[in-house]
Amino acid sequence: MEQILMDNLWVIIGTFLVLLMQGGFILLEAGSTRMKNAGHIAGKTVFTISLGSMVFWAVGWGFIYGESAGGFLGISDFFFGDASGPDGGLAGSVDFMFQMMFALIALTIAFGGFAERAKLSAYVIFAVLFSALVYPVVAHWVWGDGWLGGLGKQDFAGSTVVHLTGAMAALAATIILKPRIGKYNKDGSSNDLAGHNQVYTALGVLLLWVGWFGFNGASTFEVADAFFGYVILNTQLAAAAGAIAAMFLIWMMNGKADVPTTLNGALAGLVAITASCGFVAPWAAVVIGIIGGLIVVVSMKIFDRAKIDDPIFALSVHGMAGIWGTISTGFFAVPALSTEIGWGQAGLFYGGGFTQLGVQTLGVVAGGIYAFVISFIILYVMNKVMGGLRVTEEEEIMGLDISEHGSYGYPENMKSEKTGA
Amino acid sequence: MEQILMDNLWVIIGTFLVLLMQGGFILLEAGSTRMKNAGHIAGKTVFTISLGSMVFWAVGWGFIYGESAGGFLGISDFFFGDASGPDGGLAGSVDFMFQMMFALIALTIAFGGFAERAKLSAYVIFAVLFSALVYPVVAHWVWGDGWLGGLGKQDFAGSTVVHLTGAMAALAATIILKPRIGKYNKDGSSNDLAGHNQVYTALGVLLLWVGWFGFNGASTFEVADAFFGYVILNTQLAAAAGAIAAMFLIWMMNGKADVPTTLNGALAGLVAITASCGFVAPWAAVVIGIIGGLIVVVSMKIFDRAKIDDPIFALSVHGMAGIWGTISTGFFAVPALSTEIGWGQAGLFYGGGFTQLGVQTLGVVAGGIYAFVISFIILYVMNKVMGGLRVTEEEEIMGLDISEHGSYGYPENMKSEKTGA
Amino acid sequence: MEQILMDNLWVIIGTFLVLLMQGGFILLEAGSTRMKNAGHIAGKTVFTISLGSMVFWAVGWGFIYGESAGGFLGISDFFFGDASGPDGGLAGSVDFMFQMMFALIALTIAFGGFAERAKLSAYVIFAVLFSALVYPVVAHWVWGDGWLGGLGKQDFAGSTVVHLTGAMAALAATIILKPRIGKYNKDGSSNDLAGHNQVYTALGVLLLWVGWFGFNGASTFEVADAFFGYVILNTQLAAAAGAIAAMFLIWMMNGKADVPTTLNGALAGLVAITASCGFVAPWAAVVIGIIGGLIVVVSMKIFDRAKIDDPIFALSVHGMAGIWGTISTGFFAVPALSTEIGWGQAGLFYGGGFTQLGVQTLGVVAGGIYAFVISFIILYVMNKVMGGLRVTEEEEIMGLDISEHGSYGYPENMKSEKTGA
Repeated sequence: MEQILMDNLWVIIGTFLVLLMQGGFILLEAGSTRMKNAGHIAGKTVFTISLGSMVFWAVGWGFIYGESAGGFLGISDFFFGDASGPDGGLAGSVDFMFQMMFALIALTIAFGGFAERAKLSAYVIFAVLFSALVYPVVAHWVWGDGWLGGLGKQDFAGSTVVHLTGAMAALAATIILKPRIGKYNKDGSSNDLAGHNQVYTALGVLLLWVGWFGFNGASTFEVADAFFGYVILNTQLAAAAGAIAAMFLIWMMNGKADVPTTLNGALAGLVAITASCGFVAPWAAVVIGIIGGLIVVVSMKIFDRAKIDDPIFALSVHGMAGIWGTISTGFFAVPALSTEIGWGQAGLFYGGGFTQLGVQTLGVVAGGIYAFVISFIILYVMNKVMGGLRVTEEEEIMGLDISEHGSYGYPENMKSEKTGA
Repeated sequence: MEQILMDNLWVIIGTFLVLLMQGGFILLEAGSTRMKNAGHIAGKTVFTISLGSMVFWAVGWGFIYGESAGGFLGISDFFFGDASGPDGGLAGSVDFMFQMMFALIALTIAFGGFAERAKLSAYVIFAVLFSALVYPVVAHWVWGDGWLGGLGKQDFAGSTVVHLTGAMAALAATIILKPRIGKYNKDGSSNDLAGHNQVYTALGVLLLWVGWFGFNGASTFEVADAFFGYVILNTQLAAAAGAIAAMFLIWMMNGKADVPTTLNGALAGLVAITASCGFVAPWAAVVIGIIGGLIVVVSMKIFDRAKIDDPIFALSVHGMAGIWGTISTGFFAVPALSTEIGWGQAGLFYGGGFTQLGVQTLGVVAGGIYAFVISFIILYVMNKVMGGLRVTEEEEIMGLDISEHGSYGYPENMKSEKTGA
Repeated sequence: MEQILMDNLWVIIGTFLVLLMQGGFILLEAGSTRMKNAGHIAGKTVFTISLGSMVFWAVGWGFIYGESAGGFLGISDFFFGDASGPDGGLAGSVDFMFQMMFALIALTIAFGGFAERAKLSAYVIFAVLFSALVYPVVAHWVWGDGWLGGLGKQDFAGSTVVHLTGAMAALAATIILKPRIGKYNKDGSSNDLAGHNQVYTALGVLLLWVGWFGFNGASTFEVADAFFGYVILNTQLAAAAGAIAAMFLIWMMNGKADVPTTLNGALAGLVAITASCGFVAPWAAVVIGIIGGLIVVVSMKIFDRAKIDDPIFALSVHGMAGIWGTISTGFFAVPALSTEIGWGQAGLFYGGGFTQLGVQTLGVVAGGIYAFVISFIILYVMNKVMGGLRVTEEEEIMGLDISEHGSYGYPENMKSEKTGA
């Protein structure tokens, strides 16, 4: 019994850390965007996770973990109110809180694709619909009693379920919203609408890193064998390797090691190891992190050339690195942490053949397509019904702090700017 | 024995989280005030909690938890130095640290009423006197061996003891200090002396939210039944509901969903659920949060019209929502978490009649009056003895960074402002 | 077994908190320096700890905890990959992660001496060499199977191993790099190149304070007797006492209680209690903190007059307070926490005579000299080989955000500054 209480303690600690990641996102997103939108960007994180919390309470948890309707969706346990203690495992409330935090992370990632141009009302409505119709379905497939989990899909803490799902929604938003004013020139070249505060960005990444120890570590759901230590070791090595790889690559490519790219390398390492942290050896975590860091740099360039305006790099960091991370277990999963415990197969490099690689790829494709298509449909309909998801040109130039909230996030700085500084 | 160690572990984790809330307050307070006062506001948090720590060590703990003199005040255990381990419960040092953190939160709330106009020396002296004479008395009444606790007063984590006590001291300070220069016009209308950084404010609220999981959660003082999970679930639902309620109300009232008001809604939900998180059902937590969020919006308007200048909204967030939260258990307390465990009675809606409602109201009135009256007397005397609590008009215009500390918190921004930007 | 799992849980929580301290350093360092260098300062923290992580994984852990070659250095266990669970103690991965975090703190302290003038490439190379050749040796001496530990050196959480080692590397860097442009005038007087954001600084100190609860608290390595509570109590009292002492001293000296000095007092209290937190009584923690707070103020003045330019006060905060903290156990260690448990001797004031004072002094001298000399040699050679560690005068004036990374950390603020604000 005492060890079960310890499991509950561990998972609630993980809950704290994953909520702290929202603080990381506030800083990362605000830092990566412009001053005139900073209050809006920071504030919307708080109220969208509030909306997401209500929806998760009402239906999200039930859709994921309720009795499965054919492996596609849960259909019980709505309006969660279980007050009972742990009964041979996690208390319902502890499990619920931890899972809610994951749903909220996916939501915040999705809103990366809305930055600096979407109406406040679009945030409100999409927060509700994504939290009800998009995230829970993918989560049910992999982590609930769903069909992908049944195939042995490996996703330790959610490279697919959380990061890719969020990124696919961001992609749909980016396509429908179109690039920000001033991002692309008529000759096809692009401008750097630089984020306004790299201290925020760096601190945001550090807070995300800390929080990720709970995101990945508490996804053990138990303290047995102190296996969380191993998971966190892999997490650390991948994050560090990702930052280093991205820094040196951009340094070689551009002649300068720019700060946001280096930071995105750390995040890419973290995203990539999220699926694999419980399946691979530390040396493989280093390799997974390095490849994640390289992918993110290249991906940022490719999206930019494709004129897909992704202000907070959600598509590269959470999307591309999420895909790589999910697939990586197909190469690197060690037998002792996969075949032998009955969670999928060992990877290609450990004699497991192509089976797991195939399952992982299927998971990416199925989860990615579902999240993209449903998000796209939702946003398309919203766009029609709401007379556009985007603020007017005048409002966008003025900034969303004023247009959506009526006051600047930085009133004193903006005032001095307006008076001619 | 191992479960007892786990209890200790849990409460020390709560200690970390409640200290982290001071980081939230640094950001919330600095973000809600102007650039010329930002270094002062941020720095004073660190040195006032330092002073409060010393006082709590010397006498605060003893006044609360020492042997009770007639239910009014503890009178032993000063200069805490207990090195012994847990003896069937929390180790003295663990309990001490957790309780100290609560005292420091009340102190920081109280200083909300001093913002942007009080002398540094006023902070120093009031930190000492509040920590010795105000907070410990109310805490003894409810949580020590005091008379309100004896009546069955329900205050799970301190809506009354911490939030209302702090807010009443802030009210006394606000009245004595009078409004900031430029806040009210001759015709009775008021100006928005807007805070300078909403990113700080939003991040501050997020950190407070994370910390509140420890504030409320570890107020279980044990891990038995993983009941902390239920407490944290209620906390989350109330916070989210408060933010949403405040956002939509202000949106309807003003046509814009302003960021600070929305954030105050989340805080109001958190403050309101603080008393009730261990007594009510999740659906009731949602209701408590919604009402908290609505109250804070209305309260902010009312205080503004009454020309009570409350820069950080301490009176509305911690005072009004603290009152509502305390009273709410009189309506919503479920029998299984009150009557049946011998902590007060069930609420009105659960067949408990008006008893608990009466006790809760008495608690609010008694605690609130004590905190207000003693704080007022202290500040009144200080005002006389010190030749005023407030900096000169010239100093206030110049800003407290310069007047009280000799250098700007943002020297480069202020310099450019002075040179005409 | 369950208690052992709890030990592991406790130490991994400590790991989270010590990583969070890097967030504190990001804010402290960025806040203490100028806007033109802020993105660089914040970003370098993330990539240098990434480099340090890789080096610690490859060789650092092995040098510290591998089989000892004559008490001087460990020589096994490189490229750590232990996946086994706890075997009567901490799991290897948990211990590894906690120790890695300490190595990264020392590294970040060392870089305090590089601030606002060193090339990015100097950071990269020194991160590798310090993490391989400097920190692990001192750590092996005291905490590994080394000669200082064998003598009964008391350093509970690293006043010597972490703080002094880092500060000595910072001193070597400061000497070789020379003062920043504009710091000293021809007449020998110095200018205050004030940090740009005291809110960052205050929040940074608060985050460091929270993190320090894990730094010191989890250095118990176990939950037995909830002794961590006592350690954390001492930590809190020393930090608070340090802040108060520094505030009143600078207030008396300068007529103004400046914010950065007060904050440094809190840090000095924390650094000083780091060695002694597990050995002394709470009243002694107060004394140790007060003296730490006084030392840091005086030390800041002395270094400034000696024209040793120390932008982030690493030499005073981590160096001088680290020395004081280490030596303090020679005065204050109580028998029950030293002699009686076989960890060194009681202090002078507890009848232990001068023995422990001598051992502590030897530890400071040996550790300090080693860290200084090796760091100096490394940096001297780097200086020769790299054609200087320092950016050009033009680059330094322009700021390292542009010179080293190609874009401003605050592009909108710097733009308005350039256009004449």
